[in-house]
Amino acid sequence: MIKQPHSLSELLRMPAGPTNLDSVDPRSTPGFNGDKTAAEAARAVEASVLSDLQERLFAEGQSGGSRSVLLVLQGMDTAGKGGTVRHVLGEVNPQGCAVAAFGAPTKEELAHTFLWRIRPHAPKPGIIGVFDRSHYEDVGIVRVHDLVPPEVWRRRYGEINRFEEGLAAGGTTIIKCFLHISRDESKTRLLARLDNPHKHWKFKSPDIDERAFWDAYMEAYNVAIERCNSDAAPWFVIPADRKWYRNWAVTRLLIETLQTMAPQWPVADFDVAAERARLIASG
Amino acid sequence: MIKQPHSLSELLRMPAGPTNLDSVDPRSTPGFNGDKTAAEAARAVEASVLSDLQERLFAEGQSGGSRSVLLVLQGMDTAGKGGTVRHVLGEVNPQGCAVAAFGAPTKEELAHTFLWRIRPHAPKPGIIGVFDRSHYEDVGIVRVHDLVPPEVWRRRYGEINRFEEGLAAGGTTIIKCFLHISRDESKTRLLARLDNPHKHWKFKSPDIDERAFWDAYMEAYNVAIERCNSDAAPWFVIPADRKWYRNWAVTRLLIETLQTMAPQWPVADFDVAAERARLIASG
Repeated sequence: MIKQPHSLSELLRMPAGPTNLDSVDPRSTPGFNGDKTAAEAARAVEASVLSDLQERLFAEGQSGGSRSVLLVLQGMDTAGKGGTVRHVLGEVNPQGCAVAAFGAPTKEELAHTFLWRIRPHAPKPGIIGVFDRSHYEDVGIVRVHDLVPPEVWRRRYGEINRFEEGLAAGGTTIIKCFLHISRDESKTRLLARLDNPHKHWKFKSPDIDERAFWDAYMEAYNVAIERCNSDAAPWFVIPADRKWYRNWAVTRLLIETLQTMAPQWPVADFDVAAERARLIASG
Repeated sequence: MIKQPHSLSELLRMPAGPTNLDSVDPRSTPGFNGDKTAAEAARAVEASVLSDLQERLFAEGQSGGSRSVLLVLQGMDTAGKGGTVRHVLGEVNPQGCAVAAFGAPTKEELAHTFLWRIRPHAPKPGIIGVFDRSHYEDVGIVRVHDLVPPEVWRRRYGEINRFEEGLAAGGTTIIKCFLHISRDESKTRLLARLDNPHKHWKFKSPDIDERAFWDAYMEAYNVAIERCNSDAAPWFVIPADRKWYRNWAVTRLLIETLQTMAPQWPVADFDVAAERARLIASG
């Protein structure tokens, strides 16, 4: 008898051991039997579930709790990191959400260790933090383009594991999502950027040159996912050729994560009836 | 002939000179002829206008532009600062929006000048920054409760003006909103917090004690608005007893501000046809 996964988290979680992204079809829709319309209808309902859970987490954080969530988004250019932020987090309270986008490092950032610019963005209690790109660039593009010597990036897998374990120990539940698109779909999306003047600002000429390194990037991700795939900071691979599935899946992963955390409305630490009487009397 | 205001900004802008918040009715709905249903319908449409304008500003910021927006929200407890963030900014891209909430200062913050904790949160290019409370606490509660000597808080009006002028000179359009509720409406909202266990976490016993200082707070705000009401950083007073009007009005203020800034989609700095051909050839 085949064991049925109980949750989308189980279904999308990369198993421990050697990772091969080729084994995941970017057009597949694991855990969802339906089309775009059905997915968007489902997500509209789940947006309010997510919003409610996030509000509880926020309330907990405001009342002395130390827990938080960190959603790490990685993927090739055009994989939809920005779109995921917009659609998945767009309906939770902006106060309970902090997005940090990590572009090419500045000179100042390069003068420090690679985690220096990351650490200050660890989510505060009650917050869902989102990393749009992250410290995984420092074992990704850096490795593909030989930006630092191999002995430097090799050390980083361990440094990343210790960093993430520290965050988890401090109360942060980490969800790392690789948004997995195909090379063909990426081409389609780059073309769409070129064909729409409102999207020209998203296009950079080197984006085309990077396509020649696609396989090297996949290999770098295979290694990064294998080396940094702990229970404290698991990797999920999200088939991302279909935007509607990607949005639905990341929403569900966040909901499942928060349901497991089960934040509760804080209980009053005051005498409700007495305060009520005092308020009435206050004129 | 009475001059008709051309915009909500003109209508809600506090005029220069002595300020008297008593002259604004917290239940009024200036510039809106309609009820809650009509306001919410109007705002649903305007949310997408705001979202589009914000996306353009973000694109500009990503393409070398230096402009940004800072929305400062002040008001008595229960005035709806958090609700405004949630409803007005809830539908813009979280990536283009940064909310900073300033609670009671920490020991470390108190060891520095009052602007020390504020400055790092000045919005980056392309971003709509929101301050949920701000440096105006340092001429508000501080003055009402004698937390620093008068010669210290008196100096701060000038320091605030210089700080805000500096931000404006750097490309930040500042909108300061005082969410104006009545003492009675505040009581109703505190009661609602006490009567709903899901809202107990928002209630603090000293909130009731603060009601005795209502007039002193209004006087402190009158002075702060008068002293720091420059064209570079104008004050708007938003009648806020009706949440639907408050949300509609702040949405409109942001839209009018962004329409005046008129951010444009960045023009391609590359040869679109050549890049298109190169992409097609990239396989």
